[in-house]
Amino acid sequence: MPPPKTSRSSIGARRNPETEQAILDAAEAILQEGGDRALTMDAVARRAASSKATLYKWWPTRARLLLAVYARRKAQLDLADTGSLKGDLTAFYVNLFAFWRGSISGDLFRFVMAEAQFDPDILPVLRSYLDDRRRDTEVIFNRAQARGELRPSLIPATAAEIVVAVARDHLLTGRTRFEGEIDAIIAELTDGFSAPRSSLA
Amino acid sequence: MPPPKTSRSSIGARRNPETEQAILDAAEAILQEGGDRALTMDAVARRAASSKATLYKWWPTRARLLLAVYARRKAQLDLADTGSLKGDLTAFYVNLFAFWRGSISGDLFRFVMAEAQFDPDILPVLRSYLDDRRRDTEVIFNRAQARGELRPSLIPATAAEIVVAVARDHLLTGRTRFEGEIDAIIAELTDGFSAPRSSLA
Repeated sequence: MPPPKTSRSSIGARRNPETEQAILDAAEAILQEGGDRALTMDAVARRAASSKATLYKWWPTRARLLLAVYARRKAQLDLADTGSLKGDLTAFYVNLFAFWRGSISGDLFRFVMAEAQFDPDILPVLRSYLDDRRRDTEVIFNRAQARGELRPSLIPATAAEIVVAVARDHLLTGRTRFEGEIDAIIAELTDGFSAPRSSLA
Repeated sequence: MPPPKTSRSSIGARRNPETEQAILDAAEAILQEGGDRALTMDAVARRAASSKATLYKWWPTRARLLLAVYARRKAQLDLADTGSLKGDLTAFYVNLFAFWRGSISGDLFRFVMAEAQFDPDILPVLRSYLDDRRRDTEVIFNRAQARGELRPSLIPATAAEIVVAVARDHLLTGRTRFEGEIDAIIAELTDGFSAPRSSLA
């Protein structure tokens, strides 16, 4: 089937932001209406009135397109500054789990992670994306360091890596309800990352 | 297609261990020879000379069968007792990552985790299995507690949960080569879980 006459197309080698947003909108709408199975590259191109050549040039696989839709939603989530390490870690998990439970965000990320187990093409892109998110999360430890809350030997990048790994594991094992177990983990991480309190205090 | 005349079958409601092992052997051989796509319930029943009724009665879904094959392989992995918390955590990650990289074990677990994102039926079974593995891992902290190495406030179950979450996250993001990053995490976890050393020491 030839693309429709009104086809949006790329303006040269650089992405056209309007077309890019139209494609991500189309993919998101298809996911919301029909779930993961409805999301085919054909369906997205048709709905976005985009050429399949453009779609495949920017997102060579379905997994990459899923990750782009997820990343656009995730970009709206900020890290709360609560004034303490424990407060910031609690806000991080509460907000992230609520984001994942709300609408299609959690399913989207679960599908990306699932596809990454079968499609090695997505792994470098996914790793690079997750590294960026880990760097975002380091701000929690940079703030805590500035407040003098941290163990001197703590490395913010490593602590952030542990925090995001636990979050992802909870999503992929169906545990994003905010229950006693994550509370215990937050307490454990806070104690582990904090400077020991003087026994004379 | 009727089952072959020599069909193995269940002896009543309880599993026949010989049939169970034959089915798991068949599934494992199919995975090793043909990968994930070759593993259909039909192919397993045929190769094990088992009735499909028996196969479906014990493992109602492909994901449950994959988990059973994985669990049987995983049962052979012991936790080394090295005499220190840092040594035990290092051995845990080194041995587990080597197990996951070797042959089909890592792929098997990755496929189970991937299927769990689409097939909610497997989640309770998977959660129960992972809870058992977390309990196994607590022995590292029970030993460390007996040696007086741990922070007094540490809860072994929670610490073990963090340790296994980080391991699973590394597998699912393609990071089971034993590199600098997991070394940094082991050092961070060890420091976080350990009793603070006296500043007078």
